[in-house]
Amino acid sequence: MAGSCLKGRFLSLFDYKTEKYIVAKNKKVGVLYRVIQLSIIGYIIGWVFVSKKGYQETDEAIQSSVITKLKGVSVTNTSESGLLVWGPEDYVIPPQVKTFTQYVQTIRPLLETEISSLKLKCSVVFSSGIMSGRCLRKDENSNGTCEIYGWCPIERKFKPQGPLLTNAENFTIYIKNFIQFPKFKFSKSNVLETSDDSYLKKCRYDEELHPYCPIFRLGDITQRARYNFQDMSTFGGSIGIMISWNCDLDKGYSHCHPQYYFTRLDISVSNTTIATGFNFRHARYFKNATGESYRSLFKVYGVRFNIMVHGKAGMFSIIPTAINVASGLALMGAVTFFCDMVLLYLMKKGNSYRERKFEDCRYDKQHRSTDENLTF
Amino acid sequence: MAGSCLKGRFLSLFDYKTEKYIVAKNKKVGVLYRVIQLSIIGYIIGWVFVSKKGYQETDEAIQSSVITKLKGVSVTNTSESGLLVWGPEDYVIPPQVKTFTQYVQTIRPLLETEISSLKLKCSVVFSSGIMSGRCLRKDENSNGTCEIYGWCPIERKFKPQGPLLTNAENFTIYIKNFIQFPKFKFSKSNVLETSDDSYLKKCRYDEELHPYCPIFRLGDITQRARYNFQDMSTFGGSIGIMISWNCDLDKGYSHCHPQYYFTRLDISVSNTTIATGFNFRHARYFKNATGESYRSLFKVYGVRFNIMVHGKAGMFSIIPTAINVASGLALMGAVTFFCDMVLLYLMKKGNSYRERKFEDCRYDKQHRSTDENLTF
Amino acid sequence: MAGSCLKGRFLSLFDYKTEKYIVAKNKKVGVLYRVIQLSIIGYIIGWVFVSKKGYQETDEAIQSSVITKLKGVSVTNTSESGLLVWGPEDYVIPPQVKTFTQYVQTIRPLLETEISSLKLKCSVVFSSGIMSGRCLRKDENSNGTCEIYGWCPIERKFKPQGPLLTNAENFTIYIKNFIQFPKFKFSKSNVLETSDDSYLKKCRYDEELHPYCPIFRLGDITQRARYNFQDMSTFGGSIGIMISWNCDLDKGYSHCHPQYYFTRLDISVSNTTIATGFNFRHARYFKNATGESYRSLFKVYGVRFNIMVHGKAGMFSIIPTAINVASGLALMGAVTFFCDMVLLYLMKKGNSYRERKFEDCRYDKQHRSTDENLTF
Repeated sequence: MAGSCLKGRFLSLFDYKTEKYIVAKNKKVGVLYRVIQLSIIGYIIGWVFVSKKGYQETDEAIQSSVITKLKGVSVTNTSESGLLVWGPEDYVIPPQVKTFTQYVQTIRPLLETEISSLKLKCSVVFSSGIMSGRCLRKDENSNGTCEIYGWCPIERKFKPQGPLLTNAENFTIYIKNFIQFPKFKFSKSNVLETSDDSYLKKCRYDEELHPYCPIFRLGDITQRARYNFQDMSTFGGSIGIMISWNCDLDKGYSHCHPQYYFTRLDISVSNTTIATGFNFRHARYFKNATGESYRSLFKVYGVRFNIMVHGKAGMFSIIPTAINVASGLALMGAVTFFCDMVLLYLMKKGNSYRERKFEDCRYDKQHRSTDENLTF
Repeated sequence: MAGSCLKGRFLSLFDYKTEKYIVAKNKKVGVLYRVIQLSIIGYIIGWVFVSKKGYQETDEAIQSSVITKLKGVSVTNTSESGLLVWGPEDYVIPPQVKTFTQYVQTIRPLLETEISSLKLKCSVVFSSGIMSGRCLRKDENSNGTCEIYGWCPIERKFKPQGPLLTNAENFTIYIKNFIQFPKFKFSKSNVLETSDDSYLKKCRYDEELHPYCPIFRLGDITQRARYNFQDMSTFGGSIGIMISWNCDLDKGYSHCHPQYYFTRLDISVSNTTIATGFNFRHARYFKNATGESYRSLFKVYGVRFNIMVHGKAGMFSIIPTAINVASGLALMGAVTFFCDMVLLYLMKKGNSYRERKFEDCRYDKQHRSTDENLTF
Repeated sequence: MAGSCLKGRFLSLFDYKTEKYIVAKNKKVGVLYRVIQLSIIGYIIGWVFVSKKGYQETDEAIQSSVITKLKGVSVTNTSESGLLVWGPEDYVIPPQVKTFTQYVQTIRPLLETEISSLKLKCSVVFSSGIMSGRCLRKDENSNGTCEIYGWCPIERKFKPQGPLLTNAENFTIYIKNFIQFPKFKFSKSNVLETSDDSYLKKCRYDEELHPYCPIFRLGDITQRARYNFQDMSTFGGSIGIMISWNCDLDKGYSHCHPQYYFTRLDISVSNTTIATGFNFRHARYFKNATGESYRSLFKVYGVRFNIMVHGKAGMFSIIPTAINVASGLALMGAVTFFCDMVLLYLMKKGNSYRERKFEDCRYDKQHRSTDENLTF
């Protein structure tokens, strides 16, 4: 009769087995149990799912590329260089269009030129050269001068008097940012998708009127960072342009928009060690008619734009949903254990509950001292 | 007898307690229970573990560095510049070897030179200079010309006739990509680890024959992006080289290989606002014998290579495994609850099951109306 | 009486129901159960919470910006160029201050100059030019020379004899690294927050004495990477500076500090295909008095600094804590199931336990053959 036995075993698989419960008519523990249970349900639904979107898988590894184009022409007229015209080729460093996750573009509305010939010894009080060893002291009490090796004449001490390119605040910067969330194969650009090409040529970004226009006026950018462009361009400065993508992909392609934040980076309240302003030196090399090298050293006061892109995308996924639901269920199991402890060990009638809850397995129906039935 | 009492309590810790079950001989609920149970097991094993590799911890914060070297020499002969030889020092921008996560290298197979002297006023119909205020109109009906401040002569309107460096498609680019997954302390390079140095000098990448050769022919790259190099190099273009590392580190070091994808970035079907092609301007500065500055402005039509690296690594970890197994177990607990509800409230004999499942805790064995034993 | 019935149902919601257990006085299974239970508690507390900080949410998408400034002056005196003074404007490539997540700065303490005029045909044995087609063979047995198009004279074969800038190891590099963990809105800089400005000007990084000083001596950096600066600067080299931020934000702002690691990147033990050293070519363009272009080609042996920033921050969060606690609880449920299996099917008295555990639901109290009560 092995066949029928196996069949019986197989059929018993489909006998539904359910746990046997004891009803403890104890309203205190009952209310406690329901209150904790509701708290857990509230936490799972309210905090995990609604507030933290726990049903979504997130991708924070945003891939981004940025292209910028500056536009604007300025004329300068200094006694040193005479009349000069500045186009983006001249004032933008680095010159060519590049694309990076984090992108830095410098414009230099203020600059000082100093041409140093190849005379290699000069007598100065102090400079950043290498001492030749010969020190010329006029008398005991004066500082005297030391001969140094260095590009001569040495760099003049120079305090900028104001921006050289006075109309730079009307220059515009076009920022094209293309992003991708690789996990969800989602990609988008910050440039408004419109068939109206002229809009994208003439518009200027405005938080309320034109939030999806990719062309920014430099003066507007500094103003949004709460600084005056003219003040900043005298000693240079550093502006952070943050492009923030926070996309709920369950809501669809058209709801994923960038937000722009502007901050001044070269000023910090707490940290006094960072000098305000932004300047750097660079050199251009020339040869004269006899083939001798000389260089022009430029100390440039500029405005640096640091474009930073970050973002996060979320999309419904079954695995985090299951894990969060399951964590709620498992915590409810813990509530049962906790309330059991309260019922059995803190309530007056604990002993009698224990006797009923733990049925002794010895077939003789004599109840043992329930004291020994400590469960853990 | 406190000692023996404590000993008894301690020993009872090792009495195994097991829940008491009631066998409901209800095949409908039994089958329902087993079907849902199997679905959950299938989901956990099939989807979470096999398909999504839920037993692995993942690292998506890939650290990458890229070095490229271009090789190839070209000769040009134009009426403007005469015979010129172009080596990588000349046509690659930026010139030096750099290393970034996202890397951009531009070659310029086509260029137009224009030398502008420092004459600062010129009369043109329209240009990107600053108006001097003087407008010269010949008569009422013609457009006339306006005097502007600007580098003169102004940039000529110029349509490229074809690539200047005609053999640029035979140039090669060597891409060395070194990646690291910091979480797993795993690092690898895309260059085949071979002792055969000559292979790495002579090989050319081929998806099937030489998938681990790091040297790419420019013509092959554009062809894989489904464009013709000659067409693209006339007006310039932008090519994305995606290096994708998708590594299952449980399979070992040698199974972690990069894959290369090539796409043209400057052409998009939906977005009509992006102009096809790629060009930029840059300037070189010179001084003449009298020390006067002048510049050469170059409008460069080039091919830009945007190398993007992304990757993901997974490795077995006990924590995600435990969480996923536990989520399956907790969901099975929910099935029990659900089937209980079906059994007790939807089945005909629900009342009798309820009477058995919920044992009244009052010691008098009279059964209460089971209607009140609504469980939640 | 519908009202009193509903009230009864509502009140019964607050009757606490607790599962009925059977005490199996089987010490073997009891001990097994407690051992597994303790292992799980130990795993959750010891491994998940204490070792892996499973109660924390982590952010690995560190945002970083790096600014470097090199300081140091050197004098060279070669027969080719005569006495020359080198400041950071001259030896740092790229010249201007930039800021990137991954940052590369090259200094060139050793260089070779070669001026090539525009003569475009030269006769050489072999060079990287384009063959003009004319080959000049003196006689059958010699190699002869071929005429090529190329910049002439061609680059000389040149083995560097030692670093040109001999005191480069005393140069200093100031590294300012600003990081941000966007998820926790936490930001910090590697520069010690001190009101003592002179400390930050004079200090030099030392792992033990000055771990938060941002100024590094080049010689110290190479020494920490276990190489000699003089040896390395002859043929150039590549040094990786890793800035590692591993922050437990629960411990507070002041406990989040960077750690610096230095490694030499251009030497690898296993991979023989990477040549040791680091050099690159770049060109400068000049015009002579008659306006003819010529260029100087520089083959530069330099030391490249590759600054890499990575980091991870963790902060207490209720969701991962709940998930990990819940996973432990759910696994304990699995232990019960496993021990039940052992008790019912592997123990001698299994049948009698089964009879007690599974209470038949048919109201006639005759016990069925427990063989059929196979549970799954």
